[in-house]
Amino acid sequence: MPQDKEREPRTNGSAGKSAVQRPKGTRDFIPVEMEKRRWLETRLRTTAGLFGFREVATPAFEHVELFTMRSGQGIIEDMYDFRDKGGRHLALRPELTAPTMRLYIEGLLGEPKPLKLFYFGNCFRYEQPQKGRYREFWQFGAEILGAKRVPGEVELLALADACLKASGLKRYILRIGHVGVLRKLLEDSGVPAERQAPLMPLIDKKDHEALGVSLDALGADKAHVMDVLGSSGGPEVLAKVPGSGLEDVLDGLASAGVEGYVIEPGIARGLDYYTGMVFEADVPDLGAEKQVLGGGTYALSELFGAESIESTGFAIGFDRVLVALEAQGAAIPPAKLDFYIIPMGPSERKMALAALAALRKAGLSADIDMADRSLSKALKYASSSGASRAIIIGENEIRTGTLSVKDLATGEQRAARLEELVRT
Amino acid sequence: MPQDKEREPRTNGSAGKSAVQRPKGTRDFIPVEMEKRRWLETRLRTTAGLFGFREVATPAFEHVELFTMRSGQGIIEDMYDFRDKGGRHLALRPELTAPTMRLYIEGLLGEPKPLKLFYFGNCFRYEQPQKGRYREFWQFGAEILGAKRVPGEVELLALADACLKASGLKRYILRIGHVGVLRKLLEDSGVPAERQAPLMPLIDKKDHEALGVSLDALGADKAHVMDVLGSSGGPEVLAKVPGSGLEDVLDGLASAGVEGYVIEPGIARGLDYYTGMVFEADVPDLGAEKQVLGGGTYALSELFGAESIESTGFAIGFDRVLVALEAQGAAIPPAKLDFYIIPMGPSERKMALAALAALRKAGLSADIDMADRSLSKALKYASSSGASRAIIIGENEIRTGTLSVKDLATGEQRAARLEELVRT
Repeated sequence: MPQDKEREPRTNGSAGKSAVQRPKGTRDFIPVEMEKRRWLETRLRTTAGLFGFREVATPAFEHVELFTMRSGQGIIEDMYDFRDKGGRHLALRPELTAPTMRLYIEGLLGEPKPLKLFYFGNCFRYEQPQKGRYREFWQFGAEILGAKRVPGEVELLALADACLKASGLKRYILRIGHVGVLRKLLEDSGVPAERQAPLMPLIDKKDHEALGVSLDALGADKAHVMDVLGSSGGPEVLAKVPGSGLEDVLDGLASAGVEGYVIEPGIARGLDYYTGMVFEADVPDLGAEKQVLGGGTYALSELFGAESIESTGFAIGFDRVLVALEAQGAAIPPAKLDFYIIPMGPSERKMALAALAALRKAGLSADIDMADRSLSKALKYASSSGASRAIIIGENEIRTGTLSVKDLATGEQRAARLEELVRT
Repeated sequence: MPQDKEREPRTNGSAGKSAVQRPKGTRDFIPVEMEKRRWLETRLRTTAGLFGFREVATPAFEHVELFTMRSGQGIIEDMYDFRDKGGRHLALRPELTAPTMRLYIEGLLGEPKPLKLFYFGNCFRYEQPQKGRYREFWQFGAEILGAKRVPGEVELLALADACLKASGLKRYILRIGHVGVLRKLLEDSGVPAERQAPLMPLIDKKDHEALGVSLDALGADKAHVMDVLGSSGGPEVLAKVPGSGLEDVLDGLASAGVEGYVIEPGIARGLDYYTGMVFEADVPDLGAEKQVLGGGTYALSELFGAESIESTGFAIGFDRVLVALEAQGAAIPPAKLDFYIIPMGPSERKMALAALAALRKAGLSADIDMADRSLSKALKYASSSGASRAIIIGENEIRTGTLSVKDLATGEQRAARLEELVRT
């Protein structure tokens, strides 16, 4: 389905076309797509549950201030913001970290800490749609609030890695950095703490040219900074910036059996409320839009007027993981239907309906012909709807009280009693 | 949490309160609430799956026309409608039947029929919040497109009844009517077909005074109409209006084992695109806002400029079912955590993290102390987070290579090896 063409709100109908089409940049999900999405959601949800994270949910829209306080006024341009009939300035949520923090402050402030929360929900951004980027998209994320820093960071990274594994991605790279590494690096290289803030966006955008100019102007050790920022690898990278605070996290990851990540000091993340470990995951198969996960340790509650709390979290780009799975040829099991019942005529429908109800009651999925099709056409429909077996009920079956059961994969047909099928 | 008070977008912060609060009439869901919601969602989703229905999803907003074409211009007053940055007139969806029909026309028109679809999603309405009515609410619904009428209606009613049962409601009333019954009744009573339309809204609103005036003006048999509209019960009710088209549906329900419903000719449903069977379900425990389900057979595709297709569907008010379950004292099983691990100090954390990873890998849910609490405080936290057992790791456990496992319900403590726990 093309997403990138401008669509008029009403293009009055050529036959079989709706007079109204879905809004630009949004998607419908038909059953085959929805089954893949629910499969992935269930994998992520189950993993979070095994880790003792518990789900929260927030409204689809918030007061605009919630997002501008976190991200600055500039974000308004990229949001669906509007005034409601009471004059409130609202926005469809562009992300779920700020809403989750607001929920914590409004509803969970008095709960025992740490809180381990996860969420799965749709987010919105107003931007030009392109491959893998839609105006409505989904995020799965987790936050730990009120843990000690290192154990919290270890736990969160372990969950992120487990989620990526559970999603069935065959290839991904988990890249870990630390704001403390950057600060220490800049300090060691002759940039005092109060001059570091303007450099962070340049590091984040990997604008090494502008960064070099600034470092030169500050008389800093540009070569050392560039060497470390360009590094990526094992503990040897960290040895270049001793005492950064990341070592303890890596010790914890080793104990927890999390392996295969890369240390990358150049990760800065966009926003300046990160305070500790920062990390991202990429799937190389995705090309330019390869990042599927991002997170870190942050201070956000103060920004919203509440007491400070140690927080660490990540969000997974759910849609992009699905694109990655597709690109990697991952096999997501399709939904199955155990039985499709075909009554040969109106007088067989009574027996068919009773069999249908009995199968479903026994926890077997079952459907019935509702189009009065011929046997051959009904069998074709049954196959197309993914049924494993067809049950044919005609005069003969009524007379003998048995059902004719046809395996739709092999074509083999046999007689069976209902009690027998219900028991399987 | 009070929902009915006007809230200012920004009330700058008394300590511990966020500077930004959630928008009026919306809700946050904390973990205990979210677990109940997911429990119910899973029950409904599983039931739909057993019946061979497959899920679809549509965007959170649509072009306003989609909803005004279905429900008239008046609905704009009750919607969150807005213009996006491209000038499109959009609305947060107030319901999911019209979007599902649009999805069918845009994405499933060529698929083999019938299509059995279900959806679960949030909807929005701009109205004064009150008990059980929120500005963001959830609907679970199902639609059958392209089935023969009677088998489709039987299947849909069977699913509706199975969903209500699966939700754990102890008391509910499924009330079935038929637009054909009303038409036949009015015709039998002397109201010709072309004069019936203005009477339908009066029947729907049970405005029997105005209806009486109209019937008198038309010289119709008011007594008969009033008698039937006031009826509610078994097949004897239907005997008053023979040949209405509902009899065959009831035969099918009998074969499918659906029982306990009530025939109620007075059900008209609000909108005039219903063409066949119509039905509702109430939970008496809910008082005035007692309806939890509504549906029927309708013609909507033509309205959107596509070819006619026989359609029958229903929607369940998900939030209201949850309120009903609460009112009926239904026990929804809380989320459980198998193990909570307590390392007695930093040197025990390594063994603790390894045990944690092993338990989770074995499919057991496990959490770990991340606050360096004392043993007694950590045990208290473990109990409060719903853990079944605590695992305590101190010097002694390191030395012996065993774990101390404490049952948090009985207080009983014993030594166990990790391999043993993983096997359970």
